[in-house]
Amino acid sequence: MEAINLKAVADSIPDLYEYKTIARMNSHVFTLVRVKDRTLDFHMHPESDEVFYVVEGTMQLEFRSKTVDLKAGDMCVVPKGVEHRPICDSEVSVMLIELDGTLKPENTGGTYKDS
Amino acid sequence: MEAINLKAVADSIPDLYEYKTIARMNSHVFTLVRVKDRTLDFHMHPESDEVFYVVEGTMQLEFRSKTVDLKAGDMCVVPKGVEHRPICDSEVSVMLIELDGTLKPENTGGTYKDS
Repeated sequence: MEAINLKAVADSIPDLYEYKTIARMNSHVFTLVRVKDRTLDFHMHPESDEVFYVVEGTMQLEFRSKTVDLKAGDMCVVPKGVEHRPICDSEVSVMLIELDGTLKPENTGGTYKDS
Repeated sequence: MEAINLKAVADSIPDLYEYKTIARMNSHVFTLVRVKDRTLDFHMHPESDEVFYVVEGTMQLEFRSKTVDLKAGDMCVVPKGVEHRPICDSEVSVMLIELDGTLKPENTGGTYKDS
């Protein structure tokens, strides 16, 4: 049981697109990643809802029906089965929460590694 | 799918000790509450881990073995079955995440209501 400062941990990740597991809760994983100049392909997670929480910067979540703008301090829940793609132009630090096993190389631009 | 700004929603809760459900993810509930001058009794949640995330202010999480200081931007995971109590002296806005059904009047100083 330790204090985990989201901004400090995000800032300590050396490289963009490097997914860092920072905590686990029940069967869920909390992951931090810094991203810039990347738009993923539309995808969905058939088994898990997904939470995006912006620690620093801004990003967009695009759905088939609309686009949601997110800034630092904002969270958004993507229900399971709903197609979405994150659009990150300027640098953003974001925390993701999903059921363990949801993040894979094929839905993270190829850079997710289990840790 | 909407942006939920944690600070704005916390600031909009009219009363201290009023638990506001802000989101659900899989079988988990995200709750915001503003607290001041309150130390709960030691308790544990036998069925669920619990995440504390401080949106604004500072608080402490006391365990039988140690005390963890939390400030804005810090999170801490309390494993299920581990005795703990939050100590909130100055005003703090905190987000909680647990399995649905974990928060009850008897572990929230009597003020939790299902919503």
